[in-house]
Amino acid sequence: MTIEALGTPCAVRMAARMQRITGQTAGLAPGFVQGNLVVLPVSVADEFLRFCQRNPKPCPLIAVSEPGQPHIASLGEDVDLRTDLPRYHVWRDGALVASTPSVADVWRDDLVAFVIGCSFSFEEALTADGIPLKHVSAGTTVPMYRTNVMCEPAGRFNGPLVVSMRPMNARDTIRAIQITSRFPAVHGAPVHVGDPALIGIHDLSRPDYGDAVGISADELPVFWACGVTPQAAIASARIPFAITHAPGCMLVTDIPNASLAAS
Amino acid sequence: MTIEALGTPCAVRMAARMQRITGQTAGLAPGFVQGNLVVLPVSVADEFLRFCQRNPKPCPLIAVSEPGQPHIASLGEDVDLRTDLPRYHVWRDGALVASTPSVADVWRDDLVAFVIGCSFSFEEALTADGIPLKHVSAGTTVPMYRTNVMCEPAGRFNGPLVVSMRPMNARDTIRAIQITSRFPAVHGAPVHVGDPALIGIHDLSRPDYGDAVGISADELPVFWACGVTPQAAIASARIPFAITHAPGCMLVTDIPNASLAAS
Repeated sequence: MTIEALGTPCAVRMAARMQRITGQTAGLAPGFVQGNLVVLPVSVADEFLRFCQRNPKPCPLIAVSEPGQPHIASLGEDVDLRTDLPRYHVWRDGALVASTPSVADVWRDDLVAFVIGCSFSFEEALTADGIPLKHVSAGTTVPMYRTNVMCEPAGRFNGPLVVSMRPMNARDTIRAIQITSRFPAVHGAPVHVGDPALIGIHDLSRPDYGDAVGISADELPVFWACGVTPQAAIASARIPFAITHAPGCMLVTDIPNASLAAS
Repeated sequence: MTIEALGTPCAVRMAARMQRITGQTAGLAPGFVQGNLVVLPVSVADEFLRFCQRNPKPCPLIAVSEPGQPHIASLGEDVDLRTDLPRYHVWRDGALVASTPSVADVWRDDLVAFVIGCSFSFEEALTADGIPLKHVSAGTTVPMYRTNVMCEPAGRFNGPLVVSMRPMNARDTIRAIQITSRFPAVHGAPVHVGDPALIGIHDLSRPDYGDAVGISADELPVFWACGVTPQAAIASARIPFAITHAPGCMLVTDIPNASLAAS
């Protein structure tokens, strides 16, 4: 299966459903929103919904399913949340217990799915503006860090804000703030710029998730709220059962990135 | 004359015309655009107009007069550019030769006036958002620096970009970039953030104009293009005759600051 054959969101979802792709979705179906997936029992779904509402920068909600329904038509008529991501993580009592290309066998009638905006959308807008992204050039995963900034808790859900970091020169930093401010549904403007220690990050060369990138003397580290934040909150809350996407293996939706831009 | 009596643009202009105020206009007629003034003989006006067009961040044009006309009705029906600023500087061959509350005696039929946006407008928007400005708290003039960034030349006009600097924490820096991006007519978004040496500023404690302010460990220096830039270009071009506002003694116009905000 060539990348060219995966130019549309539907083609990507069908390839994932057939398990022809089981890896990362970065670069597939360019121009369309990719989403983080969080699936929880209805018994904790309302708490998680409040957690997202109170923490919109790390948890910008794109869609929420009806309980038990593995479909969300607003994201694509044919979407099947149980099979259409290339790879899932299954969590029990806060621990990762499986990494699998399908969750059809563990799906339950009491599950609610949350689709949360992802940085791929704003990275596309940055790239379109000519702003280089080091982790993209290197073909690595963006470096992510747990901060000392605590999320607003909701029920069992709480934990640190997790951020992704992209080094940029001052000109691109200013431009990136302007561009990402227009995309609140995919994390929006940065949450920090400059000295990492001010948000509790003491060594940029050792990210908590993803891969380190170098920072030149003329660059600032620029930090965005990250969709890994809810996964950290789920682990910390030791929720009995949860499903998430595997890192980088997102739900590819029919929503055009451009439609998320605030005017 | 109390500050309260100078709450409207017209009242400020009349007080200046009567020479009841001959000092800075900061804080007068809140909510209305104040402008930098540059007056040049028509023989160099076209070159200066091109200089402004090529350098919109330091020289955002609010209005240009008809040659010889000391009035610009779009800025206020009663505006008289010869008397309505509290203080003027008169330049001959690039040298400052007079600081005076009226230029009625040196006005000529071949003069063209340029009114250029000023940071007071965006500072009002920053303050309204709760962002503290150190030079305002201290009652001093914002620190300004000549950079190693050269303006796009036009005819005789060329010279370095002059910037103003405001220290802010990361959160306010991001917010200030968002806010000032909406005000391109008053210098718009910052031109630099972070290491001053990258734009040729080697000692923030020694500004070229205005007064130094301290920078805390959790703050970044944020730099905006400054309306002093055209004055530096006029001095450098040794223009035979020019009039400008004296620093801080601006033309107060009838244009509401809010009307400059891009939607």
